[in-house]
Amino acid sequence: MEMTVAEIAALVGAEADGDVSAVISGVAPIDEAEPGHITFLTNRRYERHLATTGATAIIVPQEYERSPAIAGKTVLLAANAYATFAKVVGLFEDRSSSLAVGIHRTAFVADTAVLGKDVAVGPCATIMGGARIGDGSVINSGVYVGPDALVGSGTTIHANATVRERVCIGDRVIVHSGAVIGSDGFGFARDGGVNLKIPQIGIVVVEDDVEIGANVTIDRATIGATTIRHGTKIDNLVQVAHNVTIGEDSVIVAQTGISGSTRVGKGVVLAGQSGIVGHIEIGDGAVVAAQAGVMSSVPAGACVSGYPARRHSVAKRISACVTNLPVLFRRVRALEKRLEELDRED
Amino acid sequence: MEMTVAEIAALVGAEADGDVSAVISGVAPIDEAEPGHITFLTNRRYERHLATTGATAIIVPQEYERSPAIAGKTVLLAANAYATFAKVVGLFEDRSSSLAVGIHRTAFVADTAVLGKDVAVGPCATIMGGARIGDGSVINSGVYVGPDALVGSGTTIHANATVRERVCIGDRVIVHSGAVIGSDGFGFARDGGVNLKIPQIGIVVVEDDVEIGANVTIDRATIGATTIRHGTKIDNLVQVAHNVTIGEDSVIVAQTGISGSTRVGKGVVLAGQSGIVGHIEIGDGAVVAAQAGVMSSVPAGACVSGYPARRHSVAKRISACVTNLPVLFRRVRALEKRLEELDRED
Amino acid sequence: MEMTVAEIAALVGAEADGDVSAVISGVAPIDEAEPGHITFLTNRRYERHLATTGATAIIVPQEYERSPAIAGKTVLLAANAYATFAKVVGLFEDRSSSLAVGIHRTAFVADTAVLGKDVAVGPCATIMGGARIGDGSVINSGVYVGPDALVGSGTTIHANATVRERVCIGDRVIVHSGAVIGSDGFGFARDGGVNLKIPQIGIVVVEDDVEIGANVTIDRATIGATTIRHGTKIDNLVQVAHNVTIGEDSVIVAQTGISGSTRVGKGVVLAGQSGIVGHIEIGDGAVVAAQAGVMSSVPAGACVSGYPARRHSVAKRISACVTNLPVLFRRVRALEKRLEELDRED
Repeated sequence: MEMTVAEIAALVGAEADGDVSAVISGVAPIDEAEPGHITFLTNRRYERHLATTGATAIIVPQEYERSPAIAGKTVLLAANAYATFAKVVGLFEDRSSSLAVGIHRTAFVADTAVLGKDVAVGPCATIMGGARIGDGSVINSGVYVGPDALVGSGTTIHANATVRERVCIGDRVIVHSGAVIGSDGFGFARDGGVNLKIPQIGIVVVEDDVEIGANVTIDRATIGATTIRHGTKIDNLVQVAHNVTIGEDSVIVAQTGISGSTRVGKGVVLAGQSGIVGHIEIGDGAVVAAQAGVMSSVPAGACVSGYPARRHSVAKRISACVTNLPVLFRRVRALEKRLEELDRED
Repeated sequence: MEMTVAEIAALVGAEADGDVSAVISGVAPIDEAEPGHITFLTNRRYERHLATTGATAIIVPQEYERSPAIAGKTVLLAANAYATFAKVVGLFEDRSSSLAVGIHRTAFVADTAVLGKDVAVGPCATIMGGARIGDGSVINSGVYVGPDALVGSGTTIHANATVRERVCIGDRVIVHSGAVIGSDGFGFARDGGVNLKIPQIGIVVVEDDVEIGANVTIDRATIGATTIRHGTKIDNLVQVAHNVTIGEDSVIVAQTGISGSTRVGKGVVLAGQSGIVGHIEIGDGAVVAAQAGVMSSVPAGACVSGYPARRHSVAKRISACVTNLPVLFRRVRALEKRLEELDRED
Repeated sequence: MEMTVAEIAALVGAEADGDVSAVISGVAPIDEAEPGHITFLTNRRYERHLATTGATAIIVPQEYERSPAIAGKTVLLAANAYATFAKVVGLFEDRSSSLAVGIHRTAFVADTAVLGKDVAVGPCATIMGGARIGDGSVINSGVYVGPDALVGSGTTIHANATVRERVCIGDRVIVHSGAVIGSDGFGFARDGGVNLKIPQIGIVVVEDDVEIGANVTIDRATIGATTIRHGTKIDNLVQVAHNVTIGEDSVIVAQTGISGSTRVGKGVVLAGQSGIVGHIEIGDGAVVAAQAGVMSSVPAGACVSGYPARRHSVAKRISACVTNLPVLFRRVRALEKRLEELDRED
């Protein structure tokens, strides 16, 4: 795969400057790039590598225009350099390993399943009765699509993922390997010392353009639906309990857990290993820090951290106090001694 | 599926009052229910919805009998309304998607495996030599049952779960998708700077009526058995290390981790993302709060929280102190100033 | 399987003392062992069981030589008793359930895949085009090996694990069930309120003698490689993000998460449920305590704990202060009262 800098710029809608006829054959990090590579700079922390990188071309933010830092360099100037980088990487993506269209001879597709055009079904995959798969979707090896499940168009379900019965998945969704969508919610009624299972008869709805990480678990609703709205991205090993709703374009980082019936808003970030109790609301645009334990609703736009989670500004002040506790204990001891002396002086 | 209120009451052993000949066709939450639905009220928080719900019938606790809040309503009065709700939901469960009895043509069942009556084995499932599956059990698509593993009667193993060799699973157990039972315990002897694997030659025993969530991992014992006793329910993404024992009717919430050789008692609740060190005991009926880090044994009936986990009453007092730390620092500063003034006055 | 104590001693390179012709047929814990069993003592805490154990032979550390505690006992004296125990357990491991060499008739192996000698491919396993599997490796039931993936010699991949395209796995590696190696890294560029996927075109390299636990997720690099070096052992449900490097012989305990581009050194221990932010370094031989939240680089050999993680000695002092906070509040209140009295006396 080879393209000139000018061709790349045209394809991703960026402005090229320098030797725009230079040929690019790959992408590499700024400190590892060699001639023939295109690289990127989005973090000022790495600016010192601009002078020494072996890259033939560099994607930089628009504000570098006319900066001496890029003098003599071949660059792609971009309003959003990171987004431009994403597009450039896409140009060099190797799609040769894509699954061939058609149903593999070792797969099982039920007679009453309905497949759109150009669907690929991999080895040992299972599509049960009444399931529907949209045009151009890929159901990889070992995937299970349960009875009456719906999968949209242009969606990829990676090897060994599980989509249980009646789950609805939209268009252009990516489900990574080992993810389980539609397992039973964890609901029990305590009855005479034993835990009586509450049948979980609801579904899961995953809207368009969602990405679901490897070994994620999303439980079906008790009644109604667990819902992941449009554009939300979920990292690996995240737990989404029954009847949770996650709004549009949110980002849920690895190993986070969201308890039952909680509503997460739009554009929310839940950082890694955070935990959210059930039956609360995380407002639009809120940010929950890594490992935070959120015990009550979080207003829109707020940033919370710690256990129990508090406004980040408050949590930071408290954390600073905690760090200084040994000193505080000494200060209090000093006060006590001074007062004892005063008492003795009396 | 349609039933009258009177029929439902008879099937679940509750007392019906009002228009008991009304026809019910589904279950819905109290704030979403429409005519034809039955709903439930178990949490006073939602009592205000009693007046406005569209539901045709409502399951309420016995103490609502003769309450004006249900005047004119059709109700099911139940001593344990939540348990009654569980039973009612079960009446409306759609079992049409159940796997057909028999061995799917794409499955592999070894010649020396023994299957009971009415067993269903799904597409691309594997049952290895010497394994035994009891009457009426369901081994879904892509499930692996290893050599000499035992699965009881009426047990369901969902798609893509793994049951390793010699694991013993009881009757009426539910194993969700992606769960791994019988992976090697994590045991290494440090030997000259390298980690020498200790072969894990024990087994896992899962007793009757246990439920194991999606992508749970339960390691086999080094020697002996890792044991999950009767009626215990384990949520998604929980880790149970080698040689752990969990007693009867306990509830282990999502993403909890239990380290090696720890003994968890009966009726214990381990809330979400809690972590328990190895070689300790969690007494019967103990409750461990979400995200708690339990470093030492917990007495029966105790409730612990925080990191390191302490009695919840103590942890709450400490947590309140932590919240007030910025104020305490100011108070100490004020004391210091006052004493400096006194010193200056002297 | 029966062996004399002398035979066992010879096979594991230990010194036997006592009735070395006694016959051993199994291994058991010291408090459960019966005649015919060999057991071990590596932790002084269990020394009291020496007198009462039913075991026929006991593996003990060399320093017990001539100790009255083992008078009259048949023992294996070993410089590293735990490592010797590991070897002895290996002698009694039942390998009868090993998968037969050859490709199972229900498996799919692409024409362009290359298999070494004595490879076993289990039922419903998939090996895609261009993949290579080394001599004596075992690809169990339901495993997916993606296009152009490389698996070394003597490696075992357990049922239902997933190895994505172009992933490289070394020799004598063990990958447990449900593990996913090579899922896409979690990389998005925020672009006009939506999350634009950054294609993840890198790979994962897993070097020789690594063990990867059940349901672990290891993401492929954005560009370049995510690398797990020689001899490192990873427990269940661990998350390793894109472009992470883990050095030789490290131990990563269950449910730990390592964020993108972080470099973990050699011989590091990350205890259970710990979390490491991205773009930092954990120095060689460092130890991170359970549930710690590591926010910044950790020097070689350091031990850190808590959230945010601090040097363990500092964290312990702070933790002791936190425990004593209610007392400190009372002490400050007493000081305030005393000063108020002084003021009134004035």
